[in-house]
Amino acid sequence: MTSMDRRAFVAGALLASGLPWRAGGEKAEAGAPQAGKAGPAFYRFRLGDYELTALYDGIWHRPIDGRFVRNAPFAEVQKALAENFLSVDRLSLPITALVVNTGVRLILIDTGSAGQLAATAGSMMSNLVAAGIDPKAIDTILVSHFHPDHINGIKTKDGRMVFPDAEIKVPAPEWTYWMDEVTPTTVPEAARGVLLNAGRIFADLRKEVTQFAPGSEVAPGITSIAAYGHTPGHVAYAVASGDSSMMVLCDTTNHPWLFVRHPDWQPIFDMDGPLAAAFRRRMLDRVAADRMLVQGYHFPFPAIGHIAKSASGYEFVPVQWQPAL
Amino acid sequence: MTSMDRRAFVAGALLASGLPWRAGGEKAEAGAPQAGKAGPAFYRFRLGDYELTALYDGIWHRPIDGRFVRNAPFAEVQKALAENFLSVDRLSLPITALVVNTGVRLILIDTGSAGQLAATAGSMMSNLVAAGIDPKAIDTILVSHFHPDHINGIKTKDGRMVFPDAEIKVPAPEWTYWMDEVTPTTVPEAARGVLLNAGRIFADLRKEVTQFAPGSEVAPGITSIAAYGHTPGHVAYAVASGDSSMMVLCDTTNHPWLFVRHPDWQPIFDMDGPLAAAFRRRMLDRVAADRMLVQGYHFPFPAIGHIAKSASGYEFVPVQWQPAL
Repeated sequence: MTSMDRRAFVAGALLASGLPWRAGGEKAEAGAPQAGKAGPAFYRFRLGDYELTALYDGIWHRPIDGRFVRNAPFAEVQKALAENFLSVDRLSLPITALVVNTGVRLILIDTGSAGQLAATAGSMMSNLVAAGIDPKAIDTILVSHFHPDHINGIKTKDGRMVFPDAEIKVPAPEWTYWMDEVTPTTVPEAARGVLLNAGRIFADLRKEVTQFAPGSEVAPGITSIAAYGHTPGHVAYAVASGDSSMMVLCDTTNHPWLFVRHPDWQPIFDMDGPLAAAFRRRMLDRVAADRMLVQGYHFPFPAIGHIAKSASGYEFVPVQWQPAL
Repeated sequence: MTSMDRRAFVAGALLASGLPWRAGGEKAEAGAPQAGKAGPAFYRFRLGDYELTALYDGIWHRPIDGRFVRNAPFAEVQKALAENFLSVDRLSLPITALVVNTGVRLILIDTGSAGQLAATAGSMMSNLVAAGIDPKAIDTILVSHFHPDHINGIKTKDGRMVFPDAEIKVPAPEWTYWMDEVTPTTVPEAARGVLLNAGRIFADLRKEVTQFAPGSEVAPGITSIAAYGHTPGHVAYAVASGDSSMMVLCDTTNHPWLFVRHPDWQPIFDMDGPLAAAFRRRMLDRVAADRMLVQGYHFPFPAIGHIAKSASGYEFVPVQWQPAL
């Protein structure tokens, strides 16, 4: 048996790349053109009688510093990132939206970044098309809250409606806060851009948008769940069909490797840190106790799995990709 | 603020599915036809100058009982499965093969189950085609070992070569054991099917197949690494290009949620349990220490990530799906 000598195998593997390949007596070969681009990224699965499709929008890389988590030392945050083999000086925030096909209605939950936030995000629409879904066929858009990575997909940059036949439903307290309550001079400075962007998307849709009370049913089998604090009116959605159900967490928790594992950490993205953490703890506690399937907007694609309780917090356990529905 | 009453929200979500949707005054709607099938499942990424494509073959569900892990109580194995939200009376073993495109050569590492083991596995070829790779363009097939889920893709059921222009390279000790050393009467009973299947694939390819010594370079930038015990000649492959490298673990470890977390557990799939566990420990220790990218044939798709050391074993940390190369 060959002994596995550490230095030899690492050196061998690394050196190999620097050595020209000796084709020797081999047949003359054509080159192998590289594709140079990623493939489609959507994941389809069944929930009872419903067919769900997770649509990958990409990753939003955001620089971070000591202000990123309000109530934890930055060194601890960086340690949590490094333990998950992520960069320690930026947050790489994946984005995944969800289509629910009830067999009668097509419902889109949140709408992606529309490529308006980062060059590395904005593929939701091409993945929607790859999944065989016509934007014109979307009947309902459910909005969790008014952050730009959730609502920008409603309109193109020049204001055209992307889903022309879709009814848009939003949580009433979210609408009230951004559209009626605050102004550019009264909104917290850090949220001014969010406010202006919400106005860009919604100002001329005031009559078309339907507001709902969190807690109410908003589509067949889909119930909104108040999960405030991230924004004043942020909601999650419980989806149920037959004996199956799942919790669409939206931004109840940001990146799971930070904020599921450390649910009490308060990222600057949560407008009311303590309130968001309280709703987050209660939500995670419930989906863990019920062993309920969850989807998280900023969970690693396909962003579906379960939540397990651990000693100090929770763990996100991704589902295994299934080969058939 | 709406209070989040546990009973109300769970009951609401679950009841909702049983209630007919009241369309009320809404526009008459066409139904939304469901696709009824999964999408393609391949994942492309860069490693230095190389372009790699992970090809999902599906999941092989195998019933398990107390004999599944030789040196652990079945209750502990079932606990580990339940903690990961997996069925406790079967092993759901995902299969993912890997194509390495060096820019000059196309190299396939292991070949999938070819749909000959389970109805839920066998999509590697359709995913290869979806990834835009012509089977005729594969230059080299690297085989890790002779278990059927790794070699069946070499031939169709009726014996036709699937990759007609590919050179096939196998570890010499693996060839020696199965093709020269044991016979149906001398091989351990549990391995008789493996032996007969290896004969079906390789008997008439004796002159075409190239044997290599584990530890040697087998393709540009690809070095074989002895990882014996799973089978007598099982190897892993280290792939290196530029400053980047990754370890293709093949079956050095079976399902990571069992055998990365508990590297000393000896599944019945490992022919020599103690030897396989020793090679597994050393391999995991090295890739963890080097923070090296890894791919595992039976890791959840896309089967790529890193290995982190924990108190009692290791953890597999999947990579985040990248939107572009």
